[in-house]
Amino acid sequence: MTTQELAQAFTQLCKEGKFDEAGKRYWSDDVMSREPMPGNEMAAIKGRAAVEKKGEWWYANNEVHSVKVEGPYVHGDQFMVRFTMDLTPKGQARMGMDEMGLYTVKDGKVVEESFFYGQ
Amino acid sequence: MTTQELAQAFTQLCKEGKFDEAGKRYWSDDVMSREPMPGNEMAAIKGRAAVEKKGEWWYANNEVHSVKVEGPYVHGDQFMVRFTMDLTPKGQARMGMDEMGLYTVKDGKVVEESFFYGQ
Repeated sequence: MTTQELAQAFTQLCKEGKFDEAGKRYWSDDVMSREPMPGNEMAAIKGRAAVEKKGEWWYANNEVHSVKVEGPYVHGDQFMVRFTMDLTPKGQARMGMDEMGLYTVKDGKVVEESFFYGQ
Repeated sequence: MTTQELAQAFTQLCKEGKFDEAGKRYWSDDVMSREPMPGNEMAAIKGRAAVEKKGEWWYANNEVHSVKVEGPYVHGDQFMVRFTMDLTPKGQARMGMDEMGLYTVKDGKVVEESFFYGQ
């Protein structure tokens, strides 16, 4: 499976709202997940179990009203997916979120995901 | 100047159509420019003069009808900008192009730009 094929399959699952399945199918067991939050314990999470836990935490703390998924954008062993979300973080006002995921592929699996926030 | 400030200033120039000025102001002298074209001589171009020449070649071979610029998306020392273009490559049919630039910053300059094509 080429990076382009993986990128398209992964993004297609996201477009169908199957984010968990995309992760289960394509993350490597030692996947690294990075958020632009220097000093925060969520800034760099390593390993499938920890990254799944991070996902559960996120869904428990955000009510997602809708997600628009665009992409993938491919270059070499990396690809990007854009997520435009309408959500309500727990105890906060409803807000829009515009985020890009940058994924690095090795041996047919995603070994790193890194999120970029729209400014 | 932080990466976030540079990202915003760079993207603002692009939003104003001042792509050349963005490069002149923020590229490092040994900037590396990468396209997802394995084996093509344009795949990896190094140095300000060569990257400017690549830009001139591109403009000479593409008639740009409009560009929509979105971003920046920031994470650590990197940022992304989305370019959605309506263009006519020389001798070809008018087409849409959806492209992401990934920029790496060091010492207040862009040391690498890497383009991802929407699939």
